[in-house]
Amino acid sequence: MKIDILSLFPDMFSGPMHESIVGKAIEDKLLDMKVTNFRDYASNKHNNVDDYPYGGGAGMLLQPQPIFDAMAAVEDENRQLPKGRVIILDPGGKPFNQKMAEDFANETHLTFICGHYEGYDERIKTLATDEVSLGDYVLTGGELAAMVMIDATVRLLPGVLGNEESAPGDSFSTGLLEYPQYSRPADFRGMQVPEVLLSGNHQLIAKWRRKQALKRTLQKRPDLLDKMEFDRKDHELLEEIKLESSDKNND
Amino acid sequence: MKIDILSLFPDMFSGPMHESIVGKAIEDKLLDMKVTNFRDYASNKHNNVDDYPYGGGAGMLLQPQPIFDAMAAVEDENRQLPKGRVIILDPGGKPFNQKMAEDFANETHLTFICGHYEGYDERIKTLATDEVSLGDYVLTGGELAAMVMIDATVRLLPGVLGNEESAPGDSFSTGLLEYPQYSRPADFRGMQVPEVLLSGNHQLIAKWRRKQALKRTLQKRPDLLDKMEFDRKDHELLEEIKLESSDKNND
Repeated sequence: MKIDILSLFPDMFSGPMHESIVGKAIEDKLLDMKVTNFRDYASNKHNNVDDYPYGGGAGMLLQPQPIFDAMAAVEDENRQLPKGRVIILDPGGKPFNQKMAEDFANETHLTFICGHYEGYDERIKTLATDEVSLGDYVLTGGELAAMVMIDATVRLLPGVLGNEESAPGDSFSTGLLEYPQYSRPADFRGMQVPEVLLSGNHQLIAKWRRKQALKRTLQKRPDLLDKMEFDRKDHELLEEIKLESSDKNND
Repeated sequence: MKIDILSLFPDMFSGPMHESIVGKAIEDKLLDMKVTNFRDYASNKHNNVDDYPYGGGAGMLLQPQPIFDAMAAVEDENRQLPKGRVIILDPGGKPFNQKMAEDFANETHLTFICGHYEGYDERIKTLATDEVSLGDYVLTGGELAAMVMIDATVRLLPGVLGNEESAPGDSFSTGLLEYPQYSRPADFRGMQVPEVLLSGNHQLIAKWRRKQALKRTLQKRPDLLDKMEFDRKDHELLEEIKLESSDKNND
């Protein structure tokens, strides 16, 4: 996969994107990543990239020219690749989610346009195939948002996650929040690991985990359950959970 | 504000947190930030911090001991500060939003616990005042999530944002998505700035912007409108928008 990033702050990407799983993917040649500073494409004498908004108001806006020209250069460099997606980071975009990360992971080329300051001149958005928001909050710039989306995407590329980090029980991949997990020691300063996990009975453990995942999702994110279809066993577990909580008998 | 971060990858924070607005806040002494590698607190010979989950399954889990002891050291170092919030980054947590950023910005001390690998031993969560998720997607670790929350929080601290970056019309601060904005030139490669913005009529501009913000939110994020209360003028604008869209007459 090739990832291009258009940003005024290329140095922001140095630490996070060269440590951890993204750095490993680059090392293993599963990912090629390039950050372009679109200030280098500004055609005015002072390399300005922003100006006041028409109609007044606080804040500065990114102007179209530098980003259009930087984008043309990126497209030219990648003309041998299939046309990819161009993602503009914007709090008004479609909220990013796991399904989108999966879609991005199927692409050959992704380009992220990172804004900064107050916002974008609206015409810049005509360059994008996707307007995406990281969530319902406002950031100083799109750089961190791009890094998050890149991390969520790259970890799904075949060969990137090793066995010890692999993700079959991840939150969201099953549609549910993850069940509680415990590692050694069995007793940590008086806090015990639930006995069933020490039992060696895999059938009981699987049932306990499914029930805990259902219970946790029901308590914390009932909205996630609306989208799911349950089999008979899940319905029984949900019934048990409801009975227990009405008895205030939490296991 | 003091921010502590517990992480196995301190170098990830070097770029993003020392550029842009967070770096400026540190320079201006509005923010003090420290990253603690909890591997340094592992009491075993090989400084291991993770182990297999009880009950089987793929992936490794962070064990309680190193994080408990690193947390005790952080608390000891900050004993002169009012007891702050301890935020554990976890996809099963409460989804982060602008309101939470505002709450965090009112605190004196925040500590972020960043997981990595498959997840946390459940007992680690007893250290946290808040379990928070960045959104409905899975990341390799909590580091990027912490950086996003720190950026969203720090930009709200008094004195951090200069006038040219100030944020009164931000998405979410009004409850609506932001209206489209335009900067120079008025004609960019055939794409024109809407005439009203060039009119100098501030009343018309304010009305156009409010209408566009309502229209965009209605089209892209109708869920945000459910939480809002509208005055008579907004109701009139919403009525206009509905009539226009049924006429397929988009202005």
